[in-house]
Amino acid sequence: MSQQRLQVVQNILSANEAIAETNRQILAKARLFSINLMASPGAGKTTLIERTVRGLSPRYRILVIEGDIATTLDAERAVAAGATAIQINTGGNCHLDAVMLNRALTQIDPGYFDLLIVENVGNLVCPASFDLGTSANVLVASVPEGHDKPHKYPSMYRGVDYVLLNKIDLLPYVDFDLDFFRKGLEALNPNVELRLISCRTGEGLSDWYQWLESKIEYHRSLD
Amino acid sequence: MSQQRLQVVQNILSANEAIAETNRQILAKARLFSINLMASPGAGKTTLIERTVRGLSPRYRILVIEGDIATTLDAERAVAAGATAIQINTGGNCHLDAVMLNRALTQIDPGYFDLLIVENVGNLVCPASFDLGTSANVLVASVPEGHDKPHKYPSMYRGVDYVLLNKIDLLPYVDFDLDFFRKGLEALNPNVELRLISCRTGEGLSDWYQWLESKIEYHRSLD
Repeated sequence: MSQQRLQVVQNILSANEAIAETNRQILAKARLFSINLMASPGAGKTTLIERTVRGLSPRYRILVIEGDIATTLDAERAVAAGATAIQINTGGNCHLDAVMLNRALTQIDPGYFDLLIVENVGNLVCPASFDLGTSANVLVASVPEGHDKPHKYPSMYRGVDYVLLNKIDLLPYVDFDLDFFRKGLEALNPNVELRLISCRTGEGLSDWYQWLESKIEYHRSLD
Repeated sequence: MSQQRLQVVQNILSANEAIAETNRQILAKARLFSINLMASPGAGKTTLIERTVRGLSPRYRILVIEGDIATTLDAERAVAAGATAIQINTGGNCHLDAVMLNRALTQIDPGYFDLLIVENVGNLVCPASFDLGTSANVLVASVPEGHDKPHKYPSMYRGVDYVLLNKIDLLPYVDFDLDFFRKGLEALNPNVELRLISCRTGEGLSDWYQWLESKIEYHRSLD
């Protein structure tokens, strides 16, 4: 049975890869910089999105596509912060895939927007296997999750371009060895960008905004 | 494709259910009380296991079966605390299933032990769909994850018998509305047990130990 199951999983992943390539072309044509935002449940993805939308709009027009198992809570928060939001209700599915993003992209004109943030389902495992076709993969880690997470979720930590370590305001109250975390991350992913932030206090977010701005401007300048 | 995929998922789930039933019979014959311990990454499952093993052994003989994607770190911690541990390396799989537990149970004599703790992969989505055949499903939630998690992961919160809300020592430092959390949980799962704990300070753990002891004694008393 496990051979057969493996085959099914591989077929699903190849189909996903083909649609991800279509998404990449749609987004490139629209000159839209896009990120696939992943994290554990409760690491702070939605609060980061609220902060980011407030920090960059109205200068930039931001589209947020929200993957959520059951509610529209996160999409409502993104809209309240000033973004346009599309909700993908996964109905129990543990990750977004390229088909879901493709359907969402057909509902709007991607050329109207400057930045697309796709908020994936809170999960450190399954989303790592499904390329969406976005420009970058971004991971929100958080201090209370513990410093061993790169070792324990290597596929996720290996496949991302940018890691935001959130909730650094809690460092005095938990046992978190930043050096151990950093070494675990660098061993898996030597070229990744790491920034320490607190979405609660705002600390460290200006670097993140600058990175987004430079990427947005670069994508807008492409022919 | 999605119809076909749904069929495959249903077939996998029925196969899992049959093996879960076998596991239930093996565990009942051994009069072994067993829990399937689930949580987000970093909620504190492993620290809870260390505390529990130290709190209940050598009076009770404890077997820990560890599901982990890539490392043996957690199994080593359980052994250091005084348990016997079996490591299941899922090789990227996002949850344990009944077949994996069944294979682990054939490696030992379950009748030798008083308590079996199965530590599932850190994930609030997929483990909820795979019954292992254990006596109880236990969820470790944690304060920094946020009070909205019952609303956002209803399958998980609906299917558990006991919820430990961990890291209550962080309540003064984060925005966590305990009443909102409690109401979300009760709406989904009115009969669930909820205990507030801190594995860091030990607060609230005596109720948890008493619950385990009463269940262990009850299972040992069965004919």
